[in-house]
Amino acid sequence: MSQVVEQGTLYVISAPSGAGKTSLVAEMLRSDEKLGVSVSHTTRPMREGEQDGVNYHFVSRDTFEAMIGRGDFLEHADVFGNYYGTSQVWVRETLAKGREVILEIDWQGAEQVRRLIPECVGIFIVPPSPEVLRARLTGRGTDAPEVVERRLQEAADECSHAVEFDYLVVNDDFGVALDDLLAIVRGQRLRMTAQQVRHKGLLARLSAQG
Amino acid sequence: MSQVVEQGTLYVISAPSGAGKTSLVAEMLRSDEKLGVSVSHTTRPMREGEQDGVNYHFVSRDTFEAMIGRGDFLEHADVFGNYYGTSQVWVRETLAKGREVILEIDWQGAEQVRRLIPECVGIFIVPPSPEVLRARLTGRGTDAPEVVERRLQEAADECSHAVEFDYLVVNDDFGVALDDLLAIVRGQRLRMTAQQVRHKGLLARLSAQG
Repeated sequence: MSQVVEQGTLYVISAPSGAGKTSLVAEMLRSDEKLGVSVSHTTRPMREGEQDGVNYHFVSRDTFEAMIGRGDFLEHADVFGNYYGTSQVWVRETLAKGREVILEIDWQGAEQVRRLIPECVGIFIVPPSPEVLRARLTGRGTDAPEVVERRLQEAADECSHAVEFDYLVVNDDFGVALDDLLAIVRGQRLRMTAQQVRHKGLLARLSAQG
Repeated sequence: MSQVVEQGTLYVISAPSGAGKTSLVAEMLRSDEKLGVSVSHTTRPMREGEQDGVNYHFVSRDTFEAMIGRGDFLEHADVFGNYYGTSQVWVRETLAKGREVILEIDWQGAEQVRRLIPECVGIFIVPPSPEVLRARLTGRGTDAPEVVERRLQEAADECSHAVEFDYLVVNDDFGVALDDLLAIVRGQRLRMTAQQVRHKGLLARLSAQG
């Protein structure tokens, strides 16, 4: 008889730029070894210090478009002329092994993933105020006003989709937001749907006694 | 304009005797001041050291039956000739104030509550093995065998309803089980349904900027 392995949980984490998502996810991965992150495919050129297969899987446009054609991506997007995408095969195989996977993608990617894996858990992270967001996106004041305005507009668009997610974390204090994220993950592991697979034998033995 | 207050969450916590539920709930209440517990009504006599309105609301059978007739109870049961019940008015008023309420009841009470307040969150606690359960229920070996057997049978019946709950916590190590329970509560507070009421203004301002 084959052993039933519990299906891992897929976390889709989105946020406007400036919410602190990337640092929070990096710290989640350090704090909880059961969590893994998906390495995206991209057609953008490799930057200094980046490694193929670590930061991204760097592929040509032809390869990427062939992958789109085969339905290899769980989600993909064209961002200013460069493709970015998440391998469906890798995610599904990892989840089938019972592993937990985090995808850091935008609301449009999240929408694509939700359609293919409806049981995914969506988490949206926001900064504590528009002022903090503006300050973070304005940076050192060296960017052209229209660049700053575009970033602000994109952040507002992203935030308008927050309610499509299952959880909302406000990143006011980094440590509190991190503990919030880790509590969400811990709580999800305790859901009956996961636990009744994990503790099938125990529940059967406890109910049979007497 | 009246302020929209987020509705509090109702936690229904059940377990077989011997799972450590009462100690865990007591520690949850000490660890998290936002949590409150419902004081049940009962017709059983007050024991030494107990206080009316603290341990239970002690009422007569006539009063209790009149309350049943008026639909005052969210759930009630007759346990070996004594009534026990949870006041529906108190629970609903407390939730309406945005407070979180814990009910410690059995699976039958949980079923009644689920019918009246479907958005309640059910948590089931189990001991780590039938052997641990048996050892705890056998006690010091001074009870009659038929009393022990009845307890074991009741525990088994209770456990057979575990899957009707939303979360399962295995109380192997007390500290780990406590942290599990607190993570469930913390995670529930971060659910979008609650957060979008709590952070309505922030989400609106973040989406409007740009």
